[in-house]
Amino acid sequence: MREVFQQSLHEVQERLVRIAELVEEAIENATTAFGNSDVAVAEQVIDAADEIETLAAELDQLTIDILARQQPVASDLRLMVGALRMSASLERMADLAQHIAQLARYRYPESAIPKGLKKTFVRMGALDVEMASKIVEVLRTQDPKVIAEVRDLDDDLDELHAKVFEKVLSDKLSANPTGVVDATLASRYHERFGDHAVGVAKQMQFFLSGSLD
Amino acid sequence: MREVFQQSLHEVQERLVRIAELVEEAIENATTAFGNSDVAVAEQVIDAADEIETLAAELDQLTIDILARQQPVASDLRLMVGALRMSASLERMADLAQHIAQLARYRYPESAIPKGLKKTFVRMGALDVEMASKIVEVLRTQDPKVIAEVRDLDDDLDELHAKVFEKVLSDKLSANPTGVVDATLASRYHERFGDHAVGVAKQMQFFLSGSLD
Repeated sequence: MREVFQQSLHEVQERLVRIAELVEEAIENATTAFGNSDVAVAEQVIDAADEIETLAAELDQLTIDILARQQPVASDLRLMVGALRMSASLERMADLAQHIAQLARYRYPESAIPKGLKKTFVRMGALDVEMASKIVEVLRTQDPKVIAEVRDLDDDLDELHAKVFEKVLSDKLSANPTGVVDATLASRYHERFGDHAVGVAKQMQFFLSGSLD
Repeated sequence: MREVFQQSLHEVQERLVRIAELVEEAIENATTAFGNSDVAVAEQVIDAADEIETLAAELDQLTIDILARQQPVASDLRLMVGALRMSASLERMADLAQHIAQLARYRYPESAIPKGLKKTFVRMGALDVEMASKIVEVLRTQDPKVIAEVRDLDDDLDELHAKVFEKVLSDKLSANPTGVVDATLASRYHERFGDHAVGVAKQMQFFLSGSLD
């Protein structure tokens, strides 16, 4: 019985890693689609978000079954509670990657990135990809060191988010309302992606230490 | 033992209702602050979001304790899982109310609502308040009819969200980049508030019927 239980916990962890890997791929592709106005890659992100939604729902069902049948306690229970929350965050990260990709598709063949903000968005995209990759790492290794790294990356992202608003409100851009809307939304999507990555990292901390702080 | 357990479930439900009531009050105040550039009311919303965060964390802890000690199954387990998810959604709704209130504060003494969009945002705010009120109702009464009502209100909200973008990109507004940014963000916050209300309604459906659809 204990062996079956250990196998279930392992299964939950593996599925979380798998979903996080797909999220990492989705944000990488979203960044490419957004930066290069690549509609074919944008479509891939949109399909991936659907797949991730299905996998997250299946993981939730597995978690609820384990809660009902095996009634875990202590850190095992925290992993189950954490899995329910992390699956919601990972699903949301995939949605945000999809939103970023969709901006590229809406504006095609024009670029969704207003002039003067290209470098900033390349950097924001790279930070999101790096955070997603750290999430895969922390889910796989359970190394608490990675949790702090995710938080540090999010601070960098927040700084860039503030910078986008400064630029958007500067004279050069203000003649282009579509650019202002796109930059505002894209920056917000990138920033929220980072927030959810921090959310996943916090859940891993909760699982490992029993505390969210 | 069964009596203690029933009391715990009742306690979870009551706390959810209480948090939802505070969220309803927060979005009402946020709508007032945003519409009337009322900085004092905006401050109240910001304080309320902190209180809701604390209450949600306490509810999560209670839910995890119940899962560990009383090992619920079937619909009782679904209420616990649902409570964990609903508390996250309600907390997020309070954050969004706070973001709306903050827009009013940033622009004070100017209005954060660009000319030509006042009526649309009054309507969006009213829809958010109505959805929050329905969430209180469904948590209190567990009446499945209310779940469908929440979804219908969200459809209206999505239409208004699309309308804001049309207006923002029209000639009249485009000379005002701050207005474009504010309207883009405010519309997105209102829309996301509605999405989370639908999320809570879906969790109630899951609790009542065992299915999310």
